[in-house]
This record gives sequence, C-alpha cells and structure tokens, in this order.
Amino acid sequence: MPALPTPSVTPPDVIRAAYAELIVSDIAASRAFYVGVLGLVVTYEDDDTLYLRAFEEYLHHSLILRRGPVPALAALAYRVRSAGELDAAVAYYEQLGVRVERRAAGATRGVGEAVRIEDPLGFPIEFFYDSEHVERFTRRYDVQGAGAISRLDHFNIVTPDVPAARDYYEGLGFRVSEDIKDDEDVVYAAWMHRKATVHDVALTGGDGPRMHHIAFATHERSQILHLCDHLGALRQSDRIERGPGRHGVSNAFYLYLLDPDGHRIEIYTHDYYTGDPDNPVVTWDVHDNQRRDWWGNPVVPSWYANASTVLDLDGEPVALTHRTEARESEVTIGADGFSYTRKNDAELGFKLGSQV
Amino acid sequence: MPALPTPSVTPPDVIRAAYAELIVSDIAASRAFYVGVLGLVVTYEDDDTLYLRAFEEYLHHSLILRRGPVPALAALAYRVRSAGELDAAVAYYEQLGVRVERRAAGATRGVGEAVRIEDPLGFPIEFFYDSEHVERFTRRYDVQGAGAISRLDHFNIVTPDVPAARDYYEGLGFRVSEDIKDDEDVVYAAWMHRKATVHDVALTGGDGPRMHHIAFATHERSQILHLCDHLGALRQSDRIERGPGRHGVSNAFYLYLLDPDGHRIEIYTHDYYTGDPDNPVVTWDVHDNQRRDWWGNPVVPSWYANASTVLDLDGEPVALTHRTEARESEVTIGADGFSYTRKNDAELGFKLGSQV
Amino acid sequence: MPALPTPSVTPPDVIRAAYAELIVSDIAASRAFYVGVLGLVVTYEDDDTLYLRAFEEYLHHSLILRRGPVPALAALAYRVRSAGELDAAVAYYEQLGVRVERRAAGATRGVGEAVRIEDPLGFPIEFFYDSEHVERFTRRYDVQGAGAISRLDHFNIVTPDVPAARDYYEGLGFRVSEDIKDDEDVVYAAWMHRKATVHDVALTGGDGPRMHHIAFATHERSQILHLCDHLGALRQSDRIERGPGRHGVSNAFYLYLLDPDGHRIEIYTHDYYTGDPDNPVVTWDVHDNQRRDWWGNPVVPSWYANASTVLDLDGEPVALTHRTEARESEVTIGADGFSYTRKNDAELGFKLGSQV
Amino acid sequence: MPALPTPSVTPPDVIRAAYAELIVSDIAASRAFYVGVLGLVVTYEDDDTLYLRAFEEYLHHSLILRRGPVPALAALAYRVRSAGELDAAVAYYEQLGVRVERRAAGATRGVGEAVRIEDPLGFPIEFFYDSEHVERFTRRYDVQGAGAISRLDHFNIVTPDVPAARDYYEGLGFRVSEDIKDDEDVVYAAWMHRKATVHDVALTGGDGPRMHHIAFATHERSQILHLCDHLGALRQSDRIERGPGRHGVSNAFYLYLLDPDGHRIEIYTHDYYTGDPDNPVVTWDVHDNQRRDWWGNPVVPSWYANASTVLDLDGEPVALTHRTEARESEVTIGADGFSYTRKNDAELGFKLGSQV
Repeated sequence: MPALPTPSVTPPDVIRAAYAELIVSDIAASRAFYVGVLGLVVTYEDDDTLYLRAFEEYLHHSLILRRGPVPALAALAYRVRSAGELDAAVAYYEQLGVRVERRAAGATRGVGEAVRIEDPLGFPIEFFYDSEHVERFTRRYDVQGAGAISRLDHFNIVTPDVPAARDYYEGLGFRVSEDIKDDEDVVYAAWMHRKATVHDVALTGGDGPRMHHIAFATHERSQILHLCDHLGALRQSDRIERGPGRHGVSNAFYLYLLDPDGHRIEIYTHDYYTGDPDNPVVTWDVHDNQRRDWWGNPVVPSWYANASTVLDLDGEPVALTHRTEARESEVTIGADGFSYTRKNDAELGFKLGSQV
Repeated sequence: MPALPTPSVTPPDVIRAAYAELIVSDIAASRAFYVGVLGLVVTYEDDDTLYLRAFEEYLHHSLILRRGPVPALAALAYRVRSAGELDAAVAYYEQLGVRVERRAAGATRGVGEAVRIEDPLGFPIEFFYDSEHVERFTRRYDVQGAGAISRLDHFNIVTPDVPAARDYYEGLGFRVSEDIKDDEDVVYAAWMHRKATVHDVALTGGDGPRMHHIAFATHERSQILHLCDHLGALRQSDRIERGPGRHGVSNAFYLYLLDPDGHRIEIYTHDYYTGDPDNPVVTWDVHDNQRRDWWGNPVVPSWYANASTVLDLDGEPVALTHRTEARESEVTIGADGFSYTRKNDAELGFKLGSQV
Repeated sequence: MPALPTPSVTPPDVIRAAYAELIVSDIAASRAFYVGVLGLVVTYEDDDTLYLRAFEEYLHHSLILRRGPVPALAALAYRVRSAGELDAAVAYYEQLGVRVERRAAGATRGVGEAVRIEDPLGFPIEFFYDSEHVERFTRRYDVQGAGAISRLDHFNIVTPDVPAARDYYEGLGFRVSEDIKDDEDVVYAAWMHRKATVHDVALTGGDGPRMHHIAFATHERSQILHLCDHLGALRQSDRIERGPGRHGVSNAFYLYLLDPDGHRIEIYTHDYYTGDPDNPVVTWDVHDNQRRDWWGNPVVPSWYANASTVLDLDGEPVALTHRTEARESEVTIGADGFSYTRKNDAELGFKLGSQV
Repeated sequence: MPALPTPSVTPPDVIRAAYAELIVSDIAASRAFYVGVLGLVVTYEDDDTLYLRAFEEYLHHSLILRRGPVPALAALAYRVRSAGELDAAVAYYEQLGVRVERRAAGATRGVGEAVRIEDPLGFPIEFFYDSEHVERFTRRYDVQGAGAISRLDHFNIVTPDVPAARDYYEGLGFRVSEDIKDDEDVVYAAWMHRKATVHDVALTGGDGPRMHHIAFATHERSQILHLCDHLGALRQSDRIERGPGRHGVSNAFYLYLLDPDGHRIEIYTHDYYTGDPDNPVVTWDVHDNQRRDWWGNPVVPSWYANASTVLDLDGEPVALTHRTEARESEVTIGADGFSYTRKNDAELGFKLGSQV
C-alpha cells in the first residue's frame, strides 16, 4: 500500500463497530440461520432484506442482510460520537484522497445521515450517528433462547499489509491491544479498538480487501455451546467451521460459524477491559501454537483461506491485492512451517492428536 | 474370540465401575497431572504409589497409580453388591475357564477381600465389595478447584470382536445403551452399563486387549473447560488430545487428555438416565459424522490409533489380537471411507473446516 | 400411625418416581406455566387434560394435569421393574390392609395395566410398568430452550410421623440417603431413594397427607437461573417462592416455584450418586442453618406452611392428621427456635441480613 | 447540600473506578476473606497492609486494606486519562471550595503522583494516573480458582440528596445509566458511569457520607455461585448478606458479602454496554418489586441500614447528614410501604414466600 497522506484535520471520533451489511443469495436461507439458529431479533424484514439486532442493541440494527447476485460485504458501519462528526469524516477522507459519499437520512432504513467511504484498505465503510431507537431486549428473557446473543462485538478484515493497515487505523484513533509477529517483525495480525474491549476491528494478513468475519458477543460460554448443540440437532454441524475454543489472543471463548453463503460469523465472549491509555499490548509469536487457540487445537485450513468478497460503493467486487509477506498458515503448518507448545521445546509441530 | 461356555451359575452382581490401577513411569510427573491439574484428592501416597479419589467418592480410591517399568493397565475394578458376590465371581469365572485369583484384604490398600481374573477379553479385572470409607468431599468447596471432578464414570476398552465382547458383558448383567454399526451389521463400538448412566464400560473395536481410556465425571461443562484453560496456562496444551466437544453417543460433553505416560483420561458430563429395563438403545450409523462429535468436529487420528497396554495377573503385557472386521477410522476418513452430516446428502466427506 | 402389619410377600420392585397427576383449576393457565415457562413437552392435550414430559423422558408423560374442582394431588406414580410386579403390588398392599385397585391398560392415557392404592400414609400411589414410548428429546436442542428440564426427579410428601413413614418406605425397598434430626432424635425429614440419586421421595414432617412438591431435574444451574429470569420478564416473579440456592441436604442447586394453583414445583440439579449399598447417610442437625440452604439463606414461611391437598381413589380430599412432634419451623425460627451457622457458636439466630 | 459553585475550568478526565482503600481491624482476618475466599491476588503485604488486585488488573492494586482503629473507608480512587489531569483536578476542586491535597509519588505504594480531595458529598476521593504495572493474570488459569474475580467494577456510596450528588457527578463528566424514583420525582438511587458499563459509582439515598459497597466483576455466574458454596464449606455462610440474584437495575447477576469488619463487597457480572452518548436511561419505580431483584426476592433489612464509616483526609470519621426525603426501605416494606410485582395489580406487598 502506498504511504497515505497525513490529513491536517481531526479524524471522526469513532465510538464502536456498530453494524455490517452483507449481500446474501437467499433471504429465507439466511433468515433460517440468523433468526432460527442465532436468534437475532428482527427489526424489519421484507422479501429482499432483513434488519436484525442483538438482544442488548437499541439502535435499529446490528446486521443488514440484502439479497444480491454475489455474496459479499456491502458495508461495515462505525458509530461516531455525534452527528457533527460526519463533517469531520468527510474532511478527513477527502484529505486521504479516497471516494467519499454523503447519504441522506433513511438511505439505510433506521439510520440518519451518514457518510460512506472506500477506505484506503479497499473496504466500504460507513460512519453514522443518528439511528432510530428500538426496544432494548436486555431483560426480555421471555424471548431470549438458550443461545442468546447480546451485541455485535467486532469486524475482522483481511488486508495484505498489516502494519500499513494498523497505521491507517491508528490515524483514525484506534489502538492496538494484541498482535501476532515473528522474530523478523513480520506482522501477521493485529487487534485494534475504540470501545474498551480487545477490538472493534482485527487486521488479518492476507490477500485483501476481504471480510474475514463479523463477531457477536454473548454473556457466557453456555450460550455459545448451545449454538453448537442446536446446529447438531438441525443436522447442520457443517456450519461449524472452527471451535468452540479459547483464543490465546483476546482470551475470548469463541466459535466460528459459516452462514448459508459462507460468510463467517464468530460468537465470542469473555475478553477483557482495555479502556486505559496504557493498556498493555500483548504480542504473540506466530509459532506459538496457543496464540489462536489456547488449548492448542488446530486452526482449520478453510479459516485461513476463505473470506468474503468486498464491494465498492457501486456494489462492484473489489480486486484483491496479494500479500507479499509470509503467510501465517505457511509458517506454522506442515512441511515448511512449525509451531511449538513450549518455547525452546525439542518437539515442534502442529498438534493434531499426534498424527499417525 | 472362540465362543464362551455358558456358566450354569449366576454371575456376580456388579454395581459399577469403581477404580482403575495404572502403571506409570514417573510418580512425580503423574502427580503433577492427576493432582496438580485434574485436582484429584490424595487418599494415600508414597514414593511408588498414589491412591486418588474424586470429590464425591467415599471409597478409598478411584484410581491407583503405581510406578513400573512399562506404562500399562494393571486392573479395572468393578464393585459388587456384597462381599458374598466374590464367591459368585469365582464360581462364574471358573466355569468360564479363565484365570481366577482370590486376593486377601489389604492386598490392595484400602480394599478388602477381592477376586482378580483375566477376563475372556484379556483384561485384568477385579471384583470387590469391602473398602475403607474415607471423607466424601461432596460439599468441600473449600478444596474443590475450578475443574473439580466428582466421580469415576466408566472404562473404555479396545477389543477386536465387539459383538463377542458384548455377549460376554451381557452375560455379566450389563446392558447396551448405544452402539455404532454399519449397514452390514458390523459393530464398531458398544456402550454398556450396570449403574443407571450410559455406561460403565465401552467396547471399542480394534486390536486388543488395550485400554482406550478411563473417564471421570464433573457436574458441569465449566469444569471441563477450566481444565483446558489450566493446561494452556501451564503450557501443556499438548495434553489435550481431543475436544472439548459434545458426543453424539451418550450426549455427554467430553474432553480427552493424555497423562504423562500417554494413558488417555476422559472428562465427561451430561449423559442421561438409563435405569429402566426398556431404556431405548440408540444405534448410530458409522458414517454419521455426528456420532462421535455432535458438532461434527474431527476425531483426531491418535484417538483411533493409540491405547494403553494391558497386563495379565503376573504383570506381563498381554499380546494383541488383531481386529479382522472393518475399522471405524478406515471406513469414515480419507480416500477409502466416507462420512455424512445429513443422511442421503449429496456432499459426503469428513468435515475439517472445508479442506483446501 | 398405628404399626403396620409386616407383609409375608415381597414388595413390588420399584425403579423410580415416574409421574404425578395433579388436579388444576384452569388448564390454560397451567399450560402457560408448565409449557410456556418450564418448557415441558406436550405429549397429548385436550380441553381438560395435559400430558407433559421432560426432554429426556421416553415414557408417555412425566406429569398429568387434569381440570377439576379442587387443586390437589390425584396420584404419584412409581415405575416397577416389570409388568409382573403388579401382582406383587396387589398382594403386598392387600396384606397391608389398604385399598387396592387394578386399572386396565389405557385407564390412564399412555399407561398400560396399573395398580393404584391408598398407601398407609394416605397418599394415592400408582405402580405401573407398561407405558407407550414416545420420542426422547435428549438431543433435540432445536426445541430445548434456555431453561430445559431433563427429567422428573422426585416427590416430596408431608406426613406427620417421619420415622413411621420411613419404616413403610423401607419395607418397600427404599433406602435413606439423608435426614434431619435433633438431639432428642426427633426426625423432621428424610430423603429416600430407589434410583441412584439422593431421592425418589422425601418425607417432610407436618400435617398430612399433603404433597409438598414434585421436582424436575436439569443438567446445569444456568437452566434454573434462566427460569427465574424468564419469570421476571413475564412479571411473574411472585411464582418464585424460594431460591435459587444450594441445598445442604442433597447438595443440589434448587429453585421452588408455585404453579397457578399453588402446587409447588422444584427445579433441581447437581445431587450425587447413591447407588452403592453402603452409601453413607448424612444426618443434619435441625438447628444447623445450612441444612436447607448451604448459603444460610432463609426458608420462607410459606414453604414450611403450605402444601397441596391429596385425594383418595374416589377423588375426595383426604383428611389431615396433625403432627404431634416438634415442627421444624418452630424449633428453628423466631422467639422459640434457634439456628446456628457454626455449632457451638456464641451467636445463634436465623440469618436474615442481620435483622435491624 | 448547598448548591455547588460552577467551576470555570474543565474537570479531570476520569476513566474509571480504580481502587479503594479500606481500614480494617485485623489484617489476618481480612486476608482470610479477601485472599482465602475471594481469591484476590496479593501484590504486596506486610503486617499492617495488604495490596490486592483482581486477575485482569495490571495496575498495582484494586484494593488496599490497612489496619486501623476504626473500620472505615479511607479513599476511593478514580484513574484519570493522563498525569496532566492532576492539575485539572486541583484547579477544579479548588474552585469547588473543598479540601485538596497533592500526594507525592509513592505516598501510596505503587501509585505515582496523585490528588486527594474531600469531595462535596463528604467522601475521600483520589485521582491518579501513574501506577506501577504488574503482571496481568488474565490467562493465569493455573492460579485462578473456581471463584475467580476479574476486576474492580464500581463503588456504591450513600448520600442524603441523590439529585444533588448526581449533579455533582455530572459536572465531573459521569452520566446516569439507571435510577429509581417515585411518582413525585423523589430519587432514591442513581447509577453513573465513565467507563462503558452501567456504573463506576452508584448513589444510594440515605444518611451519608457512608460507603455502601465496592463491587468486583467476574466473567460468569458460576464464579459467584462458587463463592457462596465456598463460604458454606467454611461455615461462614453468615458472610452472605444478600443474594445471589439478578438485579433489575443493571441486569447484573449479583451477590453481597460482608467482610470481617462488615464492609460490604458485591460480586457482579453480566451488566451491559453503555458507551454510546444516547444510551437510554432506565428509570425504575421505587414500588416495583423487581427493581432491586428481578426475581422479586427480598432486600434484607441490613442491606438498607448498614454502610461503612467514611474518613476525611486526616483519617477522622466524617459526621453524617441525614436524608430528609423518603427512604426506600420505608416506602416499600411493611405497614407504611408497598411494592407490586405487576403495576396496577390488585395484590400489593412485599413478596416473602407468602407470609403466613
């Protein structure tokens, strides 16, 4: 990525990752997954769209599913601190030289005036403040099922040059909580936040721009385990791509699911408070076999390989830029890579139940 | 296995799987695992032995670890309903034509008079009733850690001919709760019980006699998850062989660990009541990918391949008999095997995060 | 209670507490509670009856609700080991001199031939073996909600003379697991079992015969906590009579609810294995403030005072016999009673957040 | 409280409630409770002091216990965003006309330069930024017990005039998340936050200044339940003052304990994200019986009545000012008060298991 200009204006004051808009091929199939299994609350639906929210969200939606020809990411939306921040966003991104569009109130149902940009990493990003308030279902245990999801937690995006992406997000006021590196300072991934959790966005090194996953939070692990049991009962266990497990990075208990179009959804709980300015950054060695699963369970190949197409503001797929640095999957798995459980241990290799 | 004679006498009335005696190579290493990680209570220890029990056990021990030259299983002990059943055991096994030894009270610390046999499957089995009572730590939450284990639950043994082994155990009064078969009625495994749970003993088809694992029960899943977190914190995640997950068979939440000698220990919770005579048998298709993990997560190769050596009553390793029927790992994984998530689904294959 | 004759015949071989039949005043209101909140599965329903079962039950029902003029207990049903045990039951109870009725198959929907008696304690008791099998919903996580109930666990009955009632149940093959006494050997309550849990029936000293409660088991505490949250969300928190808490007796995590007619339902988990013949009996001092709640939280007055009317085999309410011995509520609460947290502690009294 | 002057300067930028300093009478007894039961990590200790932290804290301490003649609160410490905020604090409080003291680095072990004030409500408050960093035990599952506490969450203070106290804290940049009122707009309590949770400080109407409690957060409910079980096992159930339960306010799962000096400690989990500027305020009717316990369980009298003495900066107890408005306990309990489960319900009254 070419070096970005340094804007002379203040960036918009982002509060948090707020919602994602995904293109899906079949609304009914998506509804069966997101409402029937994940239990998200329907704020609005028609033949072509679903507006969903988690139980503790009081804004109009946490997720929009829109029927379209190519399963893809249409937008990642960050909420800013006030309506006035939209002007700051326009000024900031105009100086960065990227495409910027103002959107009128209602251009997205339930959302007021907004700004959408194609960010320097190639992602379609929205900033908004005004949103219709709806009932917050925090205490609605009469409608919360065994796998109740509380709120959207973060986005995870694939981008070729992680340090460059980190610089861009630091410019926007995000701070790194954890990252994965090797001894030559190659950065494989970084976790960055505005709200006081481990992340609002994670940067995963790879061919990009692609969307790796979006993540929802639950209160407890039992809710995540129920989602697995539920998918088993529906004979859809193949929607479980990876996990459940405990992350090394973030210390969160996690599960990765695949929606009917292959969009990856993480369910996530138990990360930690990061709101102090001197919050210690945790750096993991890419060869540490507990970095992505604290229990050393393998990262499945598809998790490294697959990610969702990203659309530009015209709805066209964005071409990929290839990662030129080493890839995490290659330096850790198989003949060319290695992992360890204990640093300096004689025995190296990827644990998979003692390959035989 | 040649057909067994049918004894004319009543078999001993077995209550439950009660304890196992394992040979280990290094008592200190075993103590670090069984006491330091699993949190089992030490009833007695010296330089060469450890007598351990789970928190809800009031008999002297649930597990004996004894230092010896070859890591192996020395005995699986079933408790019988009264001391008088020992005579029944002697008579029964003499008619079965296997080696039978009476043991004086105290031959095993904490255990009264007992009978040890080499059973028709080649396993060293003890029957006992009298045992020293010790404090039952049910309510000792001051010493129970986050991964507290309640009781020994079952044994799992590897034997070449599962139907023959099932016949033998049915003769002993055990009943099948679940099994795994294929369309040609090849039986790959069977679960059999005396106490009102899914099993006291599981029969796993393979080269035998070998001990596949012994299993301990917890009250809740959180305790199992803690054991994983704990091993991660100790940088011993490679002791986690498989799981945690939800079994299809038994519906139990499970975790398989490997002790320092490679003996496999399962931690297990949430199975169901089987105490009624007409308890329905659940039969699983060997190709059903949810049979061993309800979430479709893979059974790691070592779990199929490895098991502990079994000793005879002289302490000598018992020679293996090879399984002649199809092997579960071969008919379900890889080029020669197949699995499905949904019966009659077009897409077959072993889920591993969409191999790439 | 006058001394019972000692039958010369073997009692019927009881397996477990199997179902209860309750008279309720309003089927719709009961359905809202038992199905809408507790989530029990409907096996059959019409305008006047509801046949419900827990998720792991494969017999036709765990609970019958029948519309009638007086909310009451119509029957407690124990399952016996085989159909042949019905003759044993008839012979046994005829020798005991109580009313005995044979019921044809189908007299109760889903149940085969049965025997109903008015037992010496005044309760309407059924013995049955044959029952229609229905789908066992053990793995039906698609229909199990956050408060899923696994199975019926036990009955708790109020009877004036606990030692006499214990003798009667011991005659029937039940054994005591725990009891509450004082220093003068007054017995206030006893817990007795056939299946290998703490109880199938609890005997609570008081004016009887009355039904104190019936109890259902869950797998984990989270399911019990959800029932509370759910009732709060429905603005029916006044159905929560006592708990949730941890029992001293049984070590179970518990919750007491009141159905729309005031029938008390316990939700219960985490008790322990009692299946060995020498299972140690735990005796509690009636003054021990942790006996009924391990955390010392108060037993509310209504819990001691209220219980359901019991019907005879003609459907008429059975007259009460008054307890003549000391009552637990009186010897432990208020001016005439005392409790302690630590035996021999200077400070006695009933903890209620340090009364002010 | 007389109207406060309006400072012309910006208040210090508070991040969060960071630590409390309590005076205790017996360090060994306090250690047994805070380390032995609560499991807090000891950063430093000597004969007269204990510096403790929760497992996810990386600053030197979350709690200081100091031996002294009168059990009391010595300081509540808020962390500010940078060292420069200390000057802002001095300027701000000098304009408010209260006592202000600068403290040199190390005046409190592990803390850099700080400012302590006697705030307008009469509380000894510290502002600090610099603090020694220590190991963050987030992933130290080898030392985390079954009741592991993650972090300090909030302070709860008793003050006579809640609206005046709210005005003061709003001046300091805190915002209200929830409050309890009646139809005449009497405010009984308010919850206010800087970090994105329900509160850093709660204002409880009553005679003040007194400290009602300090609260620690866990990840899950199981950890809170274990603390109860643990206290039961130690025969210290009388340290459990109230709960466990689910709050209406905050939706948190809670438990109130009393330390050996009667200081009240809350253990708390499951509240919700409040970080957006338009986070909806939840107002509860003081007569709503689910406001303080969602399950309608009673607030014990001592919880309303008792609170810890507060010291001024000389270490002298601060005289109390009496609340002149209605008291929550009086308008909700007993002959002069009322509560309801359902608004407009015919049946009013305080649920206590149907008083008899």
